[in-house]
Amino acid sequence: MPEQVLDDISHRRYNPLTGSWLLVSPHRTKRPWQGQQEAPAKNVLPEYDPKCYLCPGNQRAQGDSNPQYKNTFTFVNDYSAVKEQQQEYNPEIRKDDVASLLLRAQPVTGRCYVLTFSPKHDITLADMATSEILPVIQTWTRIYASHLSATSPLKAQADKILATIPANPDGEVEPPQNQLRYMQIFENKGAAMGCSNPHPHCQVWTTSTLPEEPGKELAQMTKYKSENGRHLLEDYTKLEIEKEERVVWQNAGFLVVCPWWAVWPFEVIIIAKRHVRALVDLSDEERLQFAEAVQEVTRRYDNLFETNFPYSSGIHQAPLDCTEEEAENSWFHMHFYPPLLRSATVRKFLVGYELMAEPQRDITPEQAAARLRGCGGELYRKLLN
Amino acid sequence: MPEQVLDDISHRRYNPLTGSWLLVSPHRTKRPWQGQQEAPAKNVLPEYDPKCYLCPGNQRAQGDSNPQYKNTFTFVNDYSAVKEQQQEYNPEIRKDDVASLLLRAQPVTGRCYVLTFSPKHDITLADMATSEILPVIQTWTRIYASHLSATSPLKAQADKILATIPANPDGEVEPPQNQLRYMQIFENKGAAMGCSNPHPHCQVWTTSTLPEEPGKELAQMTKYKSENGRHLLEDYTKLEIEKEERVVWQNAGFLVVCPWWAVWPFEVIIIAKRHVRALVDLSDEERLQFAEAVQEVTRRYDNLFETNFPYSSGIHQAPLDCTEEEAENSWFHMHFYPPLLRSATVRKFLVGYELMAEPQRDITPEQAAARLRGCGGELYRKLLN
Ligand SMILES: O=P(O)(O)O[C@H]1O[C@H](CO)[C@@H](O)[C@H](O)[C@H]1O
Ligand SMILES: O=P(O)(O)O[C@H]1O[C@H](CO)[C@@H](O)[C@H](O)[C@H]1O
Repeated sequence: MPEQVLDDISHRRYNPLTGSWLLVSPHRTKRPWQGQQEAPAKNVLPEYDPKCYLCPGNQRAQGDSNPQYKNTFTFVNDYSAVKEQQQEYNPEIRKDDVASLLLRAQPVTGRCYVLTFSPKHDITLADMATSEILPVIQTWTRIYASHLSATSPLKAQADKILATIPANPDGEVEPPQNQLRYMQIFENKGAAMGCSNPHPHCQVWTTSTLPEEPGKELAQMTKYKSENGRHLLEDYTKLEIEKEERVVWQNAGFLVVCPWWAVWPFEVIIIAKRHVRALVDLSDEERLQFAEAVQEVTRRYDNLFETNFPYSSGIHQAPLDCTEEEAENSWFHMHFYPPLLRSATVRKFLVGYELMAEPQRDITPEQAAARLRGCGGELYRKLLN
Repeated sequence: MPEQVLDDISHRRYNPLTGSWLLVSPHRTKRPWQGQQEAPAKNVLPEYDPKCYLCPGNQRAQGDSNPQYKNTFTFVNDYSAVKEQQQEYNPEIRKDDVASLLLRAQPVTGRCYVLTFSPKHDITLADMATSEILPVIQTWTRIYASHLSATSPLKAQADKILATIPANPDGEVEPPQNQLRYMQIFENKGAAMGCSNPHPHCQVWTTSTLPEEPGKELAQMTKYKSENGRHLLEDYTKLEIEKEERVVWQNAGFLVVCPWWAVWPFEVIIIAKRHVRALVDLSDEERLQFAEAVQEVTRRYDNLFETNFPYSSGIHQAPLDCTEEEAENSWFHMHFYPPLLRSATVRKFLVGYELMAEPQRDITPEQAAARLRGCGGELYRKLLN
């Protein structure tokens, strides 16, 4: 195995999905830590919090009340990062006008949603059974399907899905009038990841523009496909299954690996094993398999340091409004970026060198995967009771 | 002014230095914050801490003792992120070998230094007079000069500088045998930025590779130069001086602005007004002007929320080992990335959407610059006594 040496030398690894490099320092794990400690999450939350704006029946910032929802509930973010209607802005870029070259801006419109995972204030995905995560995935699938462009190559598939998965009886959101380009589903979990409310929820930001990260990935996947005739994540998934050392877990539909190019200490990626372009391509069985993968990742995370493990996660898939080629080159996957490094209170800071020069990690992705493979079994909290 | 509308609409701005976009949501500052609060920095540090491994006379992790240094002191990091000597690794990349395409790695060698700013444990750059910051800049200049490649277009200039700026009487580091490619000088200040020791210091990581960020910037500056015949930061500096609204402060040699493309709430950049390729190009007078700029930035930061303002900062300049063209296209500047958003305890989290999709900011760079322009004058702490 030619890569054995990488356990011992400082090196950089290439991320083919974004086209960028990161620095790996496997020998640096012995460094003592005297810096900031994370506050361990308070575990004593009530199942219902009358002051929580996400709990069923409660009133939100702008006056609306949540229904007594059973599984999930989606509403427009009261403090959306993008506006739906606004003034036009369309400045001309001219080579002889330096300001137009160096002070470039584009308008962005869109809509941001908040989507709760459960009516219970005091649980997380890790506490939920696969059958309880399934409604979350169904909600993600329906919101994606309902926002899809009428001209999207995935439209027929979306219509089929909307007829198959029952609508949420507690209400659903209608897409805005103007067709949007991309839908980013993401979760910030834990105070360390800027989450301001422990009630289990994620956000869905839809914009008129294709954001940087999915844009970079789509460009890289397109390039790889045209150069090699195969999908990047198809090749990568097969390779990792064969190599084994970075695999955390898998089922028939999905592979969970600490990617070769992981930046965050225990970063993982859930990748569809077959060519799934977006949520709407998943079969009934695959949605259940995906729910199982999400369950495995979040439970293993909590088991790792016996704590409510913070992370940011996000789904990358085909844009809402896309060409035939963009749809074909999209490959459904979900990233998890968790900050903890050595314990429930010691995190990795991606700061000075990482921001100014290049991301840097200490333990290798292979070491992280081995740790996470060993964290299966019942959720540690359930064993404590 | 065509940009007035940008105070009101959600939009993206383009960063010409890195070639990437960020989302700006000027209307979103009204959002209430219920999440994590930063612990305010404890202000009661001793001038000398017998347990600090950076204080004069103290022993460090690997047994060495610090001298009774007067201004600055530089030593090799006891837990360097890169090794100096290690096994070779040079795998072949072959189109028919998927593993070689998707599991790519490069060896990185180098050396990391720690560089203290002052023997006093309880001060920061903001507390130091320009005349006290000058020795820090002289030390940065000498370490850069002494590590420069013999074939660098800046070598003659470096030799002149080494003969002009007196050597540190408390000792200096010798460059390693193997020529390195890049030197990243950076500071992590404050627990919120992963700093584990409040003793004023920065780090200097030198590597055999050109890291991602300076690499991207050099490529973008090279492209701009070849397309427009002028330097990107030359055009940008002139433009900002004319526009005024993002200027925080300036003197004859340096401009301090909240850049058009700032990601962090109060991000600033110090840019040389004339074509300075690296530290060694600065005249005696310019080093003093640069010290003044660093003083102005750090003092204004502390004054803004009357706190010990956390940030990561870093210098970008010509690589240690570079071609004539790379030297010519380099333009000396220093970035400051501070996380605080609304007060000494409420920070901006660059998390879910930012990591998965695109960086997002709330207040505009113009608003940030106006705030920082108003924060001049004596350091707030000195007025309290
Ligand atoms: O070397 P330090 O100060 O202990 O460590 C700090 O800065 C490094 C360089 O930005 C980071 O890699 C670490 O995560 C951070 O804690
Ligand atoms: O919308 P929230 O959860 O209040 O805010 C959190 O997530 C957003 C999206 O990643 C970030 O922009 C905010 O900085 C963070 O605090």
